[in-house]
Amino acid sequence: MKILLIGGTGTIGTAVAEKLEEEHEVIIASRTSGDYQVDISSVENIEQMYKDIENIDAVISTQGASHFGNLRNLTPELNDVAINSKLKAQVNLVLIGQHYVNDGGSFTLTSGIMMDDPIRKGSTAAMANGAIASFTKSAAIELERNIRINNVSPSVLEESWDK
Amino acid sequence: MKILLIGGTGTIGTAVAEKLEEEHEVIIASRTSGDYQVDISSVENIEQMYKDIENIDAVISTQGASHFGNLRNLTPELNDVAINSKLKAQVNLVLIGQHYVNDGGSFTLTSGIMMDDPIRKGSTAAMANGAIASFTKSAAIELERNIRINNVSPSVLEESWDK
Repeated sequence: MKILLIGGTGTIGTAVAEKLEEEHEVIIASRTSGDYQVDISSVENIEQMYKDIENIDAVISTQGASHFGNLRNLTPELNDVAINSKLKAQVNLVLIGQHYVNDGGSFTLTSGIMMDDPIRKGSTAAMANGAIASFTKSAAIELERNIRINNVSPSVLEESWDK
Repeated sequence: MKILLIGGTGTIGTAVAEKLEEEHEVIIASRTSGDYQVDISSVENIEQMYKDIENIDAVISTQGASHFGNLRNLTPELNDVAINSKLKAQVNLVLIGQHYVNDGGSFTLTSGIMMDDPIRKGSTAAMANGAIASFTKSAAIELERNIRINNVSPSVLEESWDK
């Protein structure tokens, strides 16, 4: 399979890339490094990426930043980080990508455990994760050409344990 | 109680206002009518509203628009309607309002059944609803001064049945 991995240089992304490269062609897209540079906060950048990288079987997104801090100090501006980076960017990868990926292709988005099992300081991440999960569930019944969509909700990573 | 009802001129809001006014002081805030005019897509407008309307015991939001249409035709721009109107505006009511409402006050946000039970054409609404539900769950464990938060997820309304 030809797999486009967005955020393939992050903590999860690196591990995912390592595993997938054993059996698949993996194109790592990232803001500043990887095989292809893309700013997925830009709708135009996403569209251009899908035009440049043809014949994609699977899109995996392991990216998305969130502010982490007390609700008391969470401002609309800080909350926008998760909305723009984690929520909109991932949803836009699907909205635009549905017109480009191969028949029977797939999208895999990343949410996170905080939406179901909240922790202090995590409300903005929980918000974005809940949005991704609900969007995924709903988009799954509408995607055409046998395209599939899933979201993965990781808990604490083996790679992040020491932090 | 003194209740601030945002979206009190809409379908749900009108019904909620009618019921609550039997026993409470209800201030209806809406974009163009009601007791107080506010554009809750504006952070500055929300802040000013909380300064103008003092001594609030409960904030109820029954507002939020979403595009309704096939996923195939859902663009990032159309998806922004739900993000801005339903998601950000409601979350910002809490982020800003947590510093203004009375001790033991409450926030009640509106999500919707589509996040759990998806229907065709509803993926952008589902996304926003899921975000509201997850934010509510997470914010609940952090709000101070005994402030509470809940979200209501209505199914088809008696008032909307004919549509």
